[in-house]
Amino acid sequence: MRTQVVIIGAGPAGLMLARLLEVAGIDAIILERKSAEYVLGRIRAGVLEQGTIDLMDRAQTGPRMHAEGLIHHGIELAFDGDSHRIDFEALVGRHVMVYGQTEVTRDLMAVRRGTTIYEAEQVELHDFDGKPWVTYARHGVTHRIDCEFIAGCDGYHGVARQSVPATALTTFERVYPFGWLGVLVDQPPVAEELIYAHHQRGFALCSQRSPARSRYYVQVPADEQVGAWSDDRFWDELRARLDPATAETLQTGPSIEKSIAPLRSFVAEPLRFGRLFLAGDAAHIVPPTGAKGLNLAMSDVAVLADAFIEYLAEQSCAGIDAYSSAVLSKIWKAERFSWWMTSLLHTFPDAGAFGRRIQRAEFDYLTGSRFAQQSLAENYVGLS
Amino acid sequence: MRTQVVIIGAGPAGLMLARLLEVAGIDAIILERKSAEYVLGRIRAGVLEQGTIDLMDRAQTGPRMHAEGLIHHGIELAFDGDSHRIDFEALVGRHVMVYGQTEVTRDLMAVRRGTTIYEAEQVELHDFDGKPWVTYARHGVTHRIDCEFIAGCDGYHGVARQSVPATALTTFERVYPFGWLGVLVDQPPVAEELIYAHHQRGFALCSQRSPARSRYYVQVPADEQVGAWSDDRFWDELRARLDPATAETLQTGPSIEKSIAPLRSFVAEPLRFGRLFLAGDAAHIVPPTGAKGLNLAMSDVAVLADAFIEYLAEQSCAGIDAYSSAVLSKIWKAERFSWWMTSLLHTFPDAGAFGRRIQRAEFDYLTGSRFAQQSLAENYVGLS
Repeated sequence: MRTQVVIIGAGPAGLMLARLLEVAGIDAIILERKSAEYVLGRIRAGVLEQGTIDLMDRAQTGPRMHAEGLIHHGIELAFDGDSHRIDFEALVGRHVMVYGQTEVTRDLMAVRRGTTIYEAEQVELHDFDGKPWVTYARHGVTHRIDCEFIAGCDGYHGVARQSVPATALTTFERVYPFGWLGVLVDQPPVAEELIYAHHQRGFALCSQRSPARSRYYVQVPADEQVGAWSDDRFWDELRARLDPATAETLQTGPSIEKSIAPLRSFVAEPLRFGRLFLAGDAAHIVPPTGAKGLNLAMSDVAVLADAFIEYLAEQSCAGIDAYSSAVLSKIWKAERFSWWMTSLLHTFPDAGAFGRRIQRAEFDYLTGSRFAQQSLAENYVGLS
Repeated sequence: MRTQVVIIGAGPAGLMLARLLEVAGIDAIILERKSAEYVLGRIRAGVLEQGTIDLMDRAQTGPRMHAEGLIHHGIELAFDGDSHRIDFEALVGRHVMVYGQTEVTRDLMAVRRGTTIYEAEQVELHDFDGKPWVTYARHGVTHRIDCEFIAGCDGYHGVARQSVPATALTTFERVYPFGWLGVLVDQPPVAEELIYAHHQRGFALCSQRSPARSRYYVQVPADEQVGAWSDDRFWDELRARLDPATAETLQTGPSIEKSIAPLRSFVAEPLRFGRLFLAGDAAHIVPPTGAKGLNLAMSDVAVLADAFIEYLAEQSCAGIDAYSSAVLSKIWKAERFSWWMTSLLHTFPDAGAFGRRIQRAEFDYLTGSRFAQQSLAENYVGLS
């Protein structure tokens, strides 16, 4: 087989890249290790920045998002019971949209005309320093695809980054001493907007997917087992971390999904190796506080799509040459913000008394300073 | 002897408190462990916020400050050779004044009419839960002063805070793994404004006291000995941490003073114990990055003077009852800012690769965001 771009991974980043190329008349094949059903079963964040919304439109898959997505004009920040609204519209004249990552994936799957090969096993990347090709196995038969470029959109554990010689890669990492225990429930959200709550028992987040589906999280130790958390225990813990009035209106129900996600900051540099490019979680991980993961992946593939189009349609290397440094600049700013918001809102076992009071001072300064709120807001809605 | 207020410590905080009371017709005696010459020999920061400038005027000791103080409209921030000016006037419409703490002390000494007892030994505080009195020894003779209030303005190592039962006090502390090696030199400053430089060799600060006297600092390990630093070694190290163009114009000379100050964040709570009140360094220490120490001490004693005046002239307890929580709110915001600016600009032995890149990302975000710069500026010139 032959194609112009082989994309490893059919998550939202890979699907969006494929779609942007498709719209520009460039042929791409996606190889995905899992089944389509498995991919759609992944429960992930659901806060879209304007840049991501614009990209969905550019991919000609915006209509359902615009119909069903919920515009959010702010978030609620709470600290040990004190609460303050961050009003994005008033502060920076912008907003975000709540629309589940699963729905983004579904929309991109639905609109795609090109080939996506699911359950592709033993994917291997070859000669990406010269004329690249990729092999994979399906039902025991090995196949080969020759291409101009390979895009690694296969996440943190994927094969793409692992195919790069260790000596060519510098990685930066922080593993946090906690994870997020998340529960998905078919109940209306407890509040119209998201609530990010620092509590002495740990962080809590009241999030949502739709007017009828809510997503709640509580911070748990990194080594916690999901089996230790019955629904009742989860709801009790969540209520304990919310202010009493909010806790009282919480509508609970049987969990549809319950899982623990570790929190990690990770960046690989550079993001180009000859004809191989890394994007999304294959290149970087942010802790979910601040909802940057999906948006950052989308901003990577927007730049990458333009770079491929420039090369394949206009024979210019400018875009592919600039890709790594262009996206890393944005990645590090999102890493900084995600790290900062994580540091503000979680309890840290080794913070000490001074560290805990500095967190409180940060909240007090923030809620009293328009500039500090504008800084938070411009980061949350997405730095341009 | 009898007076209305005994002030422990004749540094700028104690002198300012005494003077504000004096102007309001309230009698105070200051007890100082050292000699006047020793106090004037202490070399300290010299950046005054508008609130401190206003207080000097209120103390009727502003004329020399206004004549000799240098208005600074901004600072220069540098990070591994990249430089960015923070323009206070353009960002928040305010400025600071460079005027040495020694000069503030000298002016307050000169204007004081009341009694200051220098070289007061064995100072002890008695019965501050009831009717307070203070004893001290001078030339081997013990004296007693009865008073309405005691103000502890005697610094971190002073007797005032140590007189409080440990069980009544909560303290918060962070000791940084480095200090500042400072050199005072009779040479014009290398730049019109202060330069705060993060360099991979460590932090450097180009500061000044007057158009003819400069103060320079380099970050050194916490256990460094000043004897290991000849003038030549200091100038070489400073030059290495500045951008080459700045380094080239640096005018060096024999050091007038050379010392190492450790960096510490510290807060004691509460700040009132019956009739005893803590203010300035006796209550809190900030690392010098951000120049908050003197200003915070001045803001404490401004509130404390008003509280004493309210009680003694108007028989109202409102001010003394509110003192501790009122000043602690401002103290924690200054602690947060000083901690943040210290964290941004210094090298930390245990930062790790990710931590170092987050520092750089912070600098890059800051220099690209007007809101982030406004936040820095409003803190540097002094939160109102």
